[in-house]
Amino acid sequence: MMRRPAGRPALPGPDDMSDTLRGLFASDPVSRHFDDAALLAAMARFEAALAAAQADAGLVPRAAAARIEAVCTARFGPAASVAGVAAGADARTDGSDHGTRPAGTVAPADAADAADPFAPAALAAAARHAGTLAIPFVRALTEAVGREDAQAARWVHWGATSQDVADTALALAAAAAGAELQAQLARAGDALARLADAHRATTVTGRTLLQPATPVPFGWKLACWLSPLVRSRAGLAGALEAARVLQLGGASGIRAALGGRGDAVAEALAARLGLTAPEISWHGSRDRVARLGAELALLAGAMARIGRDVSLLMQGEVAEVFEPGGAGRGGSSAMPHKRNPVASMLALQAGLRAPGLVSTLLAQLPGEHERGLGTWQADWWTIGALFECAGSATAAIGEALEDLHVDADAMRANLERTGGFVYAEAVTLALAGTLGRPAAQAQMERLCRDAIDRGEPLREAIARARLASPVLAQALPEGTLDALFDPQAQRGDADAMIDGTLARWRAA
Amino acid sequence: MMRRPAGRPALPGPDDMSDTLRGLFASDPVSRHFDDAALLAAMARFEAALAAAQADAGLVPRAAAARIEAVCTARFGPAASVAGVAAGADARTDGSDHGTRPAGTVAPADAADAADPFAPAALAAAARHAGTLAIPFVRALTEAVGREDAQAARWVHWGATSQDVADTALALAAAAAGAELQAQLARAGDALARLADAHRATTVTGRTLLQPATPVPFGWKLACWLSPLVRSRAGLAGALEAARVLQLGGASGIRAALGGRGDAVAEALAARLGLTAPEISWHGSRDRVARLGAELALLAGAMARIGRDVSLLMQGEVAEVFEPGGAGRGGSSAMPHKRNPVASMLALQAGLRAPGLVSTLLAQLPGEHERGLGTWQADWWTIGALFECAGSATAAIGEALEDLHVDADAMRANLERTGGFVYAEAVTLALAGTLGRPAAQAQMERLCRDAIDRGEPLREAIARARLASPVLAQALPEGTLDALFDPQAQRGDADAMIDGTLARWRAA
Amino acid sequence: MMRRPAGRPALPGPDDMSDTLRGLFASDPVSRHFDDAALLAAMARFEAALAAAQADAGLVPRAAAARIEAVCTARFGPAASVAGVAAGADARTDGSDHGTRPAGTVAPADAADAADPFAPAALAAAARHAGTLAIPFVRALTEAVGREDAQAARWVHWGATSQDVADTALALAAAAAGAELQAQLARAGDALARLADAHRATTVTGRTLLQPATPVPFGWKLACWLSPLVRSRAGLAGALEAARVLQLGGASGIRAALGGRGDAVAEALAARLGLTAPEISWHGSRDRVARLGAELALLAGAMARIGRDVSLLMQGEVAEVFEPGGAGRGGSSAMPHKRNPVASMLALQAGLRAPGLVSTLLAQLPGEHERGLGTWQADWWTIGALFECAGSATAAIGEALEDLHVDADAMRANLERTGGFVYAEAVTLALAGTLGRPAAQAQMERLCRDAIDRGEPLREAIARARLASPVLAQALPEGTLDALFDPQAQRGDADAMIDGTLARWRAA
Amino acid sequence: MMRRPAGRPALPGPDDMSDTLRGLFASDPVSRHFDDAALLAAMARFEAALAAAQADAGLVPRAAAARIEAVCTARFGPAASVAGVAAGADARTDGSDHGTRPAGTVAPADAADAADPFAPAALAAAARHAGTLAIPFVRALTEAVGREDAQAARWVHWGATSQDVADTALALAAAAAGAELQAQLARAGDALARLADAHRATTVTGRTLLQPATPVPFGWKLACWLSPLVRSRAGLAGALEAARVLQLGGASGIRAALGGRGDAVAEALAARLGLTAPEISWHGSRDRVARLGAELALLAGAMARIGRDVSLLMQGEVAEVFEPGGAGRGGSSAMPHKRNPVASMLALQAGLRAPGLVSTLLAQLPGEHERGLGTWQADWWTIGALFECAGSATAAIGEALEDLHVDADAMRANLERTGGFVYAEAVTLALAGTLGRPAAQAQMERLCRDAIDRGEPLREAIARARLASPVLAQALPEGTLDALFDPQAQRGDADAMIDGTLARWRAA
Repeated sequence: MMRRPAGRPALPGPDDMSDTLRGLFASDPVSRHFDDAALLAAMARFEAALAAAQADAGLVPRAAAARIEAVCTARFGPAASVAGVAAGADARTDGSDHGTRPAGTVAPADAADAADPFAPAALAAAARHAGTLAIPFVRALTEAVGREDAQAARWVHWGATSQDVADTALALAAAAAGAELQAQLARAGDALARLADAHRATTVTGRTLLQPATPVPFGWKLACWLSPLVRSRAGLAGALEAARVLQLGGASGIRAALGGRGDAVAEALAARLGLTAPEISWHGSRDRVARLGAELALLAGAMARIGRDVSLLMQGEVAEVFEPGGAGRGGSSAMPHKRNPVASMLALQAGLRAPGLVSTLLAQLPGEHERGLGTWQADWWTIGALFECAGSATAAIGEALEDLHVDADAMRANLERTGGFVYAEAVTLALAGTLGRPAAQAQMERLCRDAIDRGEPLREAIARARLASPVLAQALPEGTLDALFDPQAQRGDADAMIDGTLARWRAA
Repeated sequence: MMRRPAGRPALPGPDDMSDTLRGLFASDPVSRHFDDAALLAAMARFEAALAAAQADAGLVPRAAAARIEAVCTARFGPAASVAGVAAGADARTDGSDHGTRPAGTVAPADAADAADPFAPAALAAAARHAGTLAIPFVRALTEAVGREDAQAARWVHWGATSQDVADTALALAAAAAGAELQAQLARAGDALARLADAHRATTVTGRTLLQPATPVPFGWKLACWLSPLVRSRAGLAGALEAARVLQLGGASGIRAALGGRGDAVAEALAARLGLTAPEISWHGSRDRVARLGAELALLAGAMARIGRDVSLLMQGEVAEVFEPGGAGRGGSSAMPHKRNPVASMLALQAGLRAPGLVSTLLAQLPGEHERGLGTWQADWWTIGALFECAGSATAAIGEALEDLHVDADAMRANLERTGGFVYAEAVTLALAGTLGRPAAQAQMERLCRDAIDRGEPLREAIARARLASPVLAQALPEGTLDALFDPQAQRGDADAMIDGTLARWRAA
Repeated sequence: MMRRPAGRPALPGPDDMSDTLRGLFASDPVSRHFDDAALLAAMARFEAALAAAQADAGLVPRAAAARIEAVCTARFGPAASVAGVAAGADARTDGSDHGTRPAGTVAPADAADAADPFAPAALAAAARHAGTLAIPFVRALTEAVGREDAQAARWVHWGATSQDVADTALALAAAAAGAELQAQLARAGDALARLADAHRATTVTGRTLLQPATPVPFGWKLACWLSPLVRSRAGLAGALEAARVLQLGGASGIRAALGGRGDAVAEALAARLGLTAPEISWHGSRDRVARLGAELALLAGAMARIGRDVSLLMQGEVAEVFEPGGAGRGGSSAMPHKRNPVASMLALQAGLRAPGLVSTLLAQLPGEHERGLGTWQADWWTIGALFECAGSATAAIGEALEDLHVDADAMRANLERTGGFVYAEAVTLALAGTLGRPAAQAQMERLCRDAIDRGEPLREAIARARLASPVLAQALPEGTLDALFDPQAQRGDADAMIDGTLARWRAA
Repeated sequence: MMRRPAGRPALPGPDDMSDTLRGLFASDPVSRHFDDAALLAAMARFEAALAAAQADAGLVPRAAAARIEAVCTARFGPAASVAGVAAGADARTDGSDHGTRPAGTVAPADAADAADPFAPAALAAAARHAGTLAIPFVRALTEAVGREDAQAARWVHWGATSQDVADTALALAAAAAGAELQAQLARAGDALARLADAHRATTVTGRTLLQPATPVPFGWKLACWLSPLVRSRAGLAGALEAARVLQLGGASGIRAALGGRGDAVAEALAARLGLTAPEISWHGSRDRVARLGAELALLAGAMARIGRDVSLLMQGEVAEVFEPGGAGRGGSSAMPHKRNPVASMLALQAGLRAPGLVSTLLAQLPGEHERGLGTWQADWWTIGALFECAGSATAAIGEALEDLHVDADAMRANLERTGGFVYAEAVTLALAGTLGRPAAQAQMERLCRDAIDRGEPLREAIARARLASPVLAQALPEGTLDALFDPQAQRGDADAMIDGTLARWRAA
């Protein structure tokens, strides 16, 4: 992609703007469904299936439809249904087999040939003039078909309009990328569920507002990370299903050009593409796209939250949890000893970028009339960027969780270093039974402040205070202190909460 | 609210920051659930119900709980369950009866008294120091209870933490505001459904990319507006239900201080408040809040889209549709003749503001550990602002739709003024049957361009071209032209699409 | 503000939506310029000065102008110029004197009176119908003037339109709030400059990607915090100056109604208000407002960055830096020992909220024609919210910096606990002189990994490796190791960088 | 770029994610500075200049530096200074000469060769593991140098860290893209200034809130479009200059590894690259990047505003202004007659996308400590996307303005069709001289409402009303009506405003 045509066009126009390097922030199995090759293949799939569906409905000669489909297939691979893509996706999730990728997206050897009518740089330049990619694409396809069969070329894109092919391509790509993303989410959630189960008895300092707090089972903390994934799984499935919908409306959206056979064509076309036929054209109603975008951002955010916590736990002074290391992972070009939290970085980056993208999808909802101006036209790239965020974050965190290193000893040591102040709530409540909450809290505040000033652990401070105050001695009998300062004794509802969360995750 | 305390505090701190005037952009029945009075009342409701639930569980003396509840009720009204609030909301949606508002939010006569421990300005100043409103609120409540019963004061806020009351107050307000919003949405959607049904036979110029296009039934256009409301209704209901959830976790979230009775307390507390008990603490998992925020923005966007179209149709040069007028509506201080599209303005304003608010909710998902710093703390106001957007837009558009003026004659006249070019797609397809789509399109492009240059209507241009070209004359026999230029003849699938959309709206 | 009128209006409309409690996230000296009282006072100031300027130009009878001004002054205080407000602001920054607040914003005792024509709830309700606050406000003012002098009432708002008063009020409020904010910024930056100077010799672990890195002088870290404040000071001053501009255009913006005296009126009006007269109406060009908003967000972000670092340094396991404590600061309702980083929280909250608000200001730039629909109408509140963010963050961080507790011993101890690995870069470069950077880096990576695995400090690991490898022993002669592991020895350009930054801050 | 490696890596990682098709929304002369080739070339330029600057300072052998530079030049072209790039850019703005593009970005013929160590797909995959592109890039460069000279390879990237190369590459690309953008802005503004001057005497209906209002000179409307461009030109120049700054800090930012020669190296390096040396490292202070991003969004918004108005004026019912047409411009795949407002679409699309990108840059300001995690890492792509927005919008609008078709007759006809109501303000003010503004406004409201109801032009309605009301007849003497209804008579300050704006634009 670094090859530029020797003779650049005289008029400055879009050129080969490769940004493969951005792949640093992408998970290829998800993002590949939104690259140039995938876009052209999806558009071709629409055109091939449209002709076939119209042949079914008697609107287009069967031979012409067959020829259109053949040209599309030869150039972009078989018009696999989304279901097929998704099945292929499942097969690929172990990373071992990329052979099921729709062949069409593997361009022929001469793809970069300047004479290729589908060469992206030329299509982009023409699209910038036309205001839509569909016009130069349909022209290129018509020419390609026409070179083989002039009659068949008449029927390319029959009764459809530019946005029909653009929006349906979007639906196809979203379904395919979504299937990959769901597989990645399943993997990350499963890893988390296993970890949560395994770390019920590991105790870690609670941390609220970045300050030490009452300890919690580390397994409970992990279940907290898992909890939004349960809802994201459901939300994502719903949003994907809702967005898996054909667009076919023609010029203004009512399929005026399909001579009363619009419904039949739409049903057949949707079936061929593995999509749903909509009850009404949705070209002007972008809420499904925005809702899907919001779900992708929510997933990215849930992964970024895990990344936030992992990176905080991996700080040098905390050192309780580590992302997996390994050659080339998280190095520093200046400091050879470093193991940087790379998966966390990727997830946080995705979580940072996603909200602005969602705001773009929401801001364009009030598009004008039947087809807005300067709104939906870039949806392919905006929703593609959101899939990039969600995919990158989910893949990175999933990988990190599958080999997360947890240092339970460090957790215990850090907890002990807190000087027992994290048990102050427990002591306060014990005191409150006698003194009432307000007085107990005031007394404990004083006691804690003095102990901190003296650098004395809380338990010793209490022991001393008991000597000086009979009321305190009575309110906190010697025998209760062990339990109050025992991290294991104060599990609260942690186990039930873990159980409840795991049950929901596993119920799918 | 313009009354400032005579003696301002020496230290510059938050003061009475009334912005009632912002009510210009709010629908009171929705937004009232997020004002100061509602916030304090919801917090009081939590504290009263907490004590009662703990009394049920044997953790707090029954008499103390009764006293706490009595003080809360006396000051803030009965601890109405959300269900009750919602029921009240329904009763109020006709606008005729405000008497059902929970009495508690009507503050006693001395509310503005400087000595009032719950005076918002003082609470806000203390909250700014404490980092949370809950601390000064609980202190004020404890004092208020203590003035009547020192023993009962011991049990205020027992075993809970600041975020428990903040988040549960949010859940209560969201449920109440959500019920109002659902009623408003129902009203707007019903008005739209009636209009769509009524205007099946009204024809309007299609408009794509702000240019004239193939005409469509105006009822179909209205059904397009309705279509996202069907999905918003479902999405909003789901998001509200998911957010209708108690938060009770204590210091770190595991209810360590509730001595093994946490689950029982949570169940009882949730029941008393009309909420669901969560499977695990959600203080650190803000996805429900963000998902609800996204739904509110989607609804605001769907209304803004209606506002966009109405305001475009109301332009002086178009003049096909008008918002209702009436005294004081949409005037201009400089131009007495103006009838401005005020409802559209309000909806577009809401649609403009909502995306940024959603991005804030999404950006805070990666909060730190058990309780993030500088993230969830402002959720009350952020989600409140989103309810403001959705409520303002829905109320304004609902009102406008109920009395929308549609000028079918103007629609017809505008359509005629297009010179028939909006039928070019139909003519092209008719031609394509003979010439093929590419040649037909090229021929029509030429023909249209020449006609536009000459200022000649398309039909006349075709008539002339037929004389000059036998091929054209044969491809477009005289008899077909009437149908091609007849707006009623080209309904495509419009009726089925309207039917499908209305059926979905009415299926609820 | 919790007092609701007993008889609510039958039609659900905007009511008293006090949210004083939101003051938790505001700095009153800044935010007060955007509350209801300030808005009405600024509008009154515009109307009074307009009449006076028109009297100067001979368009309005001098007596009428005097009467209008008198009514405005009696009701809202003297029409202080912005310069006057700013001067007052300076006097107030020590918090000791609130007496200079323009009297007008202290409403008379009967402000809440239902009969008050300026009662915010009633104005808001009427504004929601009119689509602008200016219409009911001008009506109320006209009535108020008319009660005293029917002739004078004729000249209220002469030749102006709603947006003229709205936009000019915005300019006035921005100038006044900006002056306060600049004072707060000066205070915060000065505190930071003093700290940076004082901590040149304090060494702290460098931290990159949340991992320990080469140590740095703490004073240098503080200078890094200061560096964006230098640019924010300049950027804010420029944006405020640019936004300090009158809007006066009449119906469409060309001052058609001012009979050729428009320029003279605009000059005189601007002078009376302490504003600049614009070269062309800016009602449709909102870039100044958006640019100011961006500067406010940049300032909030610079403060949030300090808050991020302070809160990370205040973590229990790090404990190197502390926000000032004191009664009521940063407590926890559940954990009496806690000292939460409240200032950091406030700054981070502001930094979280600001970006979405800026995106709203940017998204509305493409408003329609001479006056957009649903765009600028809410600018008062959007820019007000951004002032709230910037003011809250700057005030909170400024206060925290003035009394920041820095624990140099803890910094040293944490640095020592890193096991010397943070000096790995220095050792690598020393080695590289002999081995070349690639080989040196590879060798150090191995050496570090092994040492970490063995839990051995880096220096000991090197000592052992020297014994085993003559090459290494030669490349790292014994005598160089002390310097390599001496934090003070590796200051690089830190001092020059501190000097350069302080010089820029102090150059203002 | 559609060529995928035959054997995909077993581990799913980033692959060739070409999205050249996105070029539809980009202006190549600007965006090319942010594509893959430009990124690698900028990184190489940094490394070559770093070695040279260090040779100047005596830190690196002169021969090694020469070798490093030679390898970089051979692979990526000469290490042109930004000044050189900018000069080249100027030469290229006429579109006639692409020969000055730095040769380095034209990759050698074997760029796509799998064995190429700089192949983007492989670099991206390695970068995803490393968390930064700099590590695999430096490794590849070290190997490339090492193949020719093992000694020289030792000195590659000496004393620098990954972010130094990333941030400096960003500064280089921003300067180069900025120079192109400034040239495009100059072109668009000049076209606008010419138009504004030419259309002083053309009258167009004013339009406020999308309703007809007092007419304005069309040249004044154009000057309103120009007005923000004056400020954008200054703001952009300032932000570009501020961002034209070297980053060189080493591991933690203090240049600890440069042995006291850091300042000298930085100065020499900056000079070689055409950049400024910073007073302190800015890797953790991202305000310059965010401020630049905000300026880019402001420019995109200013262009989108022009696009909004052009597209509204180009509506079929308005038809006053047209974007240039021409083969392939703005067609529809379904409707052959259409001339879509493509430039407006591109500008509006850019204006829609930019705000969310700015919010991302603002949201990342609070990065952690010396180098944040998951924040600045994607700045290249975020700021690149903002340049894409600003460049696409400016190029498209500039082109459209240079050949804008203005139909003054249509403007006059539309104005006449308003029925004279747009003169209502003038009539009201004339009346107000006698009746006072409130009574005049009330009377005119009634009069207008009745006339509209009867479908009667305002002037006729007034004539009739004069017959019925002697007061009115006296207040509006026959002779004044002509002037009141004469569009040319009501120019207000339009000419002075146009002059003022043109003077500011031309003053640069």
